Amino acid sequence: MIAVLKKTATKDQIESLKGWFENKGLKVNESQGEFCTVLGLIGDTTQVDIEMLMGLDIIETVTRVSEPFKQANRKFHPEDTVVDCGGVKIGGGHFAVMAGPCSVESREQIIETAKRVQDAGATMLRGGAFKPRTSPYDFQGLKEKGIDLLLEAKAATGLPVVTEIMNPDHLPLFKDIDLIQVGARNMQNFELLKELGKTNKPVLLKRGLSATLKELLMSAEYIMSEGNPNVIFCERGIRTYETYTRNTFDLSAVPILHELSHLPVVADPSHATGKRSLIKPMAMAATAAGADGLEIEVHPDPSKALSDGAQSLTPEMFTDVMAQVTKVRGIL
Amino acid sequence: MIAVLKKTATKDQIESLKGWFENKGLKVNESQGEFCTVLGLIGDTTQVDIEMLMGLDIIETVTRVSEPFKQANRKFHPEDTVVDCGGVKIGGGHFAVMAGPCSVESREQIIETAKRVQDAGATMLRGGAFKPRTSPYDFQGLKEKGIDLLLEAKAATGLPVVTEIMNPDHLPLFKDIDLIQVGARNMQNFELLKELGKTNKPVLLKRGLSATLKELLMSAEYIMSEGNPNVIFCERGIRTYETYTRNTFDLSAVPILHELSHLPVVADPSHATGKRSLIKPMAMAATAAGADGLEIEVHPDPSKALSDGAQSLTPEMFTDVMAQVTKVRGIL
Amino acid sequence: MIAVLKKTATKDQIESLKGWFENKGLKVNESQGEFCTVLGLIGDTTQVDIEMLMGLDIIETVTRVSEPFKQANRKFHPEDTVVDCGGVKIGGGHFAVMAGPCSVESREQIIETAKRVQDAGATMLRGGAFKPRTSPYDFQGLKEKGIDLLLEAKAATGLPVVTEIMNPDHLPLFKDIDLIQVGARNMQNFELLKELGKTNKPVLLKRGLSATLKELLMSAEYIMSEGNPNVIFCERGIRTYETYTRNTFDLSAVPILHELSHLPVVADPSHATGKRSLIKPMAMAATAAGADGLEIEVHPDPSKALSDGAQSLTPEMFTDVMAQVTKVRGIL
Amino acid sequence: MIAVLKKTATKDQIESLKGWFENKGLKVNESQGEFCTVLGLIGDTTQVDIEMLMGLDIIETVTRVSEPFKQANRKFHPEDTVVDCGGVKIGGGHFAVMAGPCSVESREQIIETAKRVQDAGATMLRGGAFKPRTSPYDFQGLKEKGIDLLLEAKAATGLPVVTEIMNPDHLPLFKDIDLIQVGARNMQNFELLKELGKTNKPVLLKRGLSATLKELLMSAEYIMSEGNPNVIFCERGIRTYETYTRNTFDLSAVPILHELSHLPVVADPSHATGKRSLIKPMAMAATAAGADGLEIEVHPDPSKALSDGAQSLTPEMFTDVMAQVTKVRGIL
Repeated sequence: MIAVLKKTATKDQIESLKGWFENKGLKVNESQGEFCTVLGLIGDTTQVDIEMLMGLDIIETVTRVSEPFKQANRKFHPEDTVVDCGGVKIGGGHFAVMAGPCSVESREQIIETAKRVQDAGATMLRGGAFKPRTSPYDFQGLKEKGIDLLLEAKAATGLPVVTEIMNPDHLPLFKDIDLIQVGARNMQNFELLKELGKTNKPVLLKRGLSATLKELLMSAEYIMSEGNPNVIFCERGIRTYETYTRNTFDLSAVPILHELSHLPVVADPSHATGKRSLIKPMAMAATAAGADGLEIEVHPDPSKALSDGAQSLTPEMFTDVMAQVTKVRGIL
Repeated sequence: MIAVLKKTATKDQIESLKGWFENKGLKVNESQGEFCTVLGLIGDTTQVDIEMLMGLDIIETVTRVSEPFKQANRKFHPEDTVVDCGGVKIGGGHFAVMAGPCSVESREQIIETAKRVQDAGATMLRGGAFKPRTSPYDFQGLKEKGIDLLLEAKAATGLPVVTEIMNPDHLPLFKDIDLIQVGARNMQNFELLKELGKTNKPVLLKRGLSATLKELLMSAEYIMSEGNPNVIFCERGIRTYETYTRNTFDLSAVPILHELSHLPVVADPSHATGKRSLIKPMAMAATAAGADGLEIEVHPDPSKALSDGAQSLTPEMFTDVMAQVTKVRGIL
Repeated sequence: MIAVLKKTATKDQIESLKGWFENKGLKVNESQGEFCTVLGLIGDTTQVDIEMLMGLDIIETVTRVSEPFKQANRKFHPEDTVVDCGGVKIGGGHFAVMAGPCSVESREQIIETAKRVQDAGATMLRGGAFKPRTSPYDFQGLKEKGIDLLLEAKAATGLPVVTEIMNPDHLPLFKDIDLIQVGARNMQNFELLKELGKTNKPVLLKRGLSATLKELLMSAEYIMSEGNPNVIFCERGIRTYETYTRNTFDLSAVPILHELSHLPVVADPSHATGKRSLIKPMAMAATAAGADGLEIEVHPDPSKALSDGAQSLTPEMFTDVMAQVTKVRGIL
Repeated sequence: MIAVLKKTATKDQIESLKGWFENKGLKVNESQGEFCTVLGLIGDTTQVDIEMLMGLDIIETVTRVSEPFKQANRKFHPEDTVVDCGGVKIGGGHFAVMAGPCSVESREQIIETAKRVQDAGATMLRGGAFKPRTSPYDFQGLKEKGIDLLLEAKAATGLPVVTEIMNPDHLPLFKDIDLIQVGARNMQNFELLKELGKTNKPVLLKRGLSATLKELLMSAEYIMSEGNPNVIFCERGIRTYETYTRNTFDLSAVPILHELSHLPVVADPSHATGKRSLIKPMAMAATAAGADGLEIEVHPDPSKALSDGAQSLTPEMFTDVMAQVTKVRGIL
């Protein structure tokens, strides 16, 4: 960590600051310039609060040379982490496709979808039981019943299942779920992250609507620092001024997260774009960018079902997407 | 609600959609144009899921004419709501100033700050006990102990207190807190909102980092629809590309929320700007824009305390801000 | 175009508005609802100013059913446009790779780069002669001399050249340039667009830093409506809150622009990411998303040259990128 | 300027970089840390291209300690600049109100508006003659004729006039215009800025839709470095994800620009919000934040005129705004 102090900092202020750093076990390397004093901090600076430092009147700028995340950091863990989700491996060359409806609606719907996506090549089944909705008046999911139906579909097909948790008190309901999803709106629900950190369940951590990649990494750190190493990132689009797509799919996140972290990275073109016609090209693009998996919405009969989101594919369309994605995987 | 159907929609599809609306108790007014069919939906459309509709192939656009929020809506509640927080009224002409440190650090710090801000004209004491931090390695607040110290400061000064909740399980600890804050990162933690809705505690609902004003209104609706009418909005800056300030203070939110809702609106120039020198002009601006109150960080001795954020005022600076804000209030 | 009028609109106001539309040659289809009156406008509404309409007190919302762009619109021109740039075709299945240095620096540099990128498979040479810089004190390019050197490199290799224009008065200097680039900062320099529209030169129109795709399409319309049909779009990243990359590469733009328009779409991973290590995965992703070409920065000897941007590849790296991109092209 | 070099930088690379800095006339202060080498650069670093440096493999980070803008910098010019626009002073305690229609439409309209806004207390007349429009099919203004009508209104009332320029070739038409506006879309049209820098005309430089404040300052520097010191900033809202207002009014820009620069700062609540009902509170807020002036759209008879934007006030409304703004001015 490099702290640049203002020219106006007095000798006393500088000594007091140096003492404070040294009390934290850091070695301080001072160098005087004409316009500023530079302090180089050597040692474990992860516990130094950068915003607090920025608040001091004598500080010009502070730059972290080492990242504030450790357990998620590739520097300290160079090999790719492979997460096992009910027998399906993700990361380190293992590519997973999680497909299924936005919401679990009925036994027939979820079991039929599970079979159809399995036939098309999906390796996991997704489906929402607890649904975070902007409006309290919108459908909030089948809840416990939805979890039960997912598990029935798992029993019927053998596909491991992924579904979203919204409340740490619900954890017991998720004991047979293979991959627990933390939604974008809960990426910084630190209380939820800490509780998930106390389990050893694989967690699919979706990027927040306006989260930086550093914040996403720090949220993984919340889970990992409690003892759970099984974290998978999911890029699902960020909020920008552009309104044509529901979100802006930030695919650069895939190679960046791979550079910075050893954890697997999955991409969700359905939520990122919100438009059915964009899912195939963006699924291919995400795969070409190096994603370790995809999460895609598929509904068995969108023409009948009114609850079919603009972003759901039919099983036929999904089969086509899988064929193209498989070709892209083939050249990597 | 106005649904514009594509030219390609067949007679059968249109009839099926009309039937679906009618089953929801809506009256449907159809008009045929050369390029499209327009359905006007009359009745209570709050329960119609607009995203689901947008997903249908035959839909060109859907526009809500009536807003999806009801209890927070000024149309159905024209008079300003006044929220009573431990004897301090906010809204409907009542202006409140909540001041205090970012974090409760010690008995001396919080009691001294309470006295100093009270002398300067603050009407409530703020202070963080549970602190949401980006990093699990950063200071997370004094927690229960912090709540106790806040209540001691309340006893010593008579100032009602406001502090943040992060977990619904902590609610019993907040029984003597006068105003419970929901932080920006939890604005869409719907499980937390619903639990707060089951109490009758005043709630200070901070706008999320990238929340639209409609989403903020819908989050208030989550609390209110459970039975708690005591919601106060807080504009605290949104995330944009500009890095000079910590956030971008969207002061237009103040008059907009007043137009759309009867609930009080408070502004937080400390978090919005992250810079001490900007707090005075922006507190004045927020007041001039019609805010019903301010939340401002004040620390008794920032020159000594390393934990003083860049955005904390000294009590002397705060006294100066209060004098100017009072003048602005005088001309409204 | 659908105009929804407020319930409070009087009969006189509605008649006056209808008359105004009819004077513009539009047929007006009126339907009365309980909460609003809906006017459906039939005919050529491209000349109706939607912002002006939104300004009227009686208007609730206005929605365009037909897009305001015509010449760039795929609806009126279903086949892909193929643009010929000095013999290199772009669009309609023709894939072009424009490579070269950010700035033309010297004869040796540009000619060597041209040969190296040609060997690696590039089909066009890029290089900046007039450089738009945030600071007036930064290097502004070799200007006329840079154009001359580019043309020398073209003569030496046969590669057509692409370079940026900043001022319509410079057009005579560009008479032998094969593809004239309009930079992101000039995407809405309408005076420049109109002048380019009066030529028949191929134009590479880069998306503005915060331009919506609709605005990008309208800027193409500025060029095309003056008579020049040779427009190529370039997605080069948009400005968001994320600071890890220079911009956020919005790859969804590629399939969206292909849906909405018949014009070719090129992607620029160098400027979009600003980071050398991201260029290969993002070039592959852009190709997989269906881009008709790539623009990539390559510098012959970044280890020597201090002017080598963080985003420039060496010729060796570029050769590797080309090999992977070619494989992705092979499966499309 | 502080350059932090990576631990992996070799002795030769460091020496070569130091030599390069020294060739630019900079003194280099080197300090070795355990994890990095820090170079402090002393002297005039405005001409060092920070992006170029960032591109070097051996660089970890580069931080400017001194700002890259000089002529606009308050450090080198501590007193407020007062710009004289046809006899109306702006800055340094002088407050100006520029009011008038979005577009000049006719002699009657502009002269009547001029008289009405003058009566209400405006000190300058604004009106668009050359209009930058997103669509080539929208009304582009009366152009030369509009300039003539503005000058007639100036003659009739004595109010100095402000209007927008889009093309440096039009400069001769602006010889009697008192304040030349550069619109948001042209804030980085560097060719236009340089031409305006060669005149001594006051320039109203509007912030770009996604321009940082540093970029705005650098654009002023383009004008000033050519010799014209008469620059006035205008905050007019930035583009964010929020769609309720046309733009997000970033009022913090007012005190920040005052801190960083000696130039006057004007605010435009009409374009920033795009909504008539927000103009009064936001004009008051901008004034309370310390703005040196306001630019406000006023149209004489919005109920008749179809070209009245949603953001235009009637003269009566404007009179009310002026009364409130004057009260706010009174307490500063």
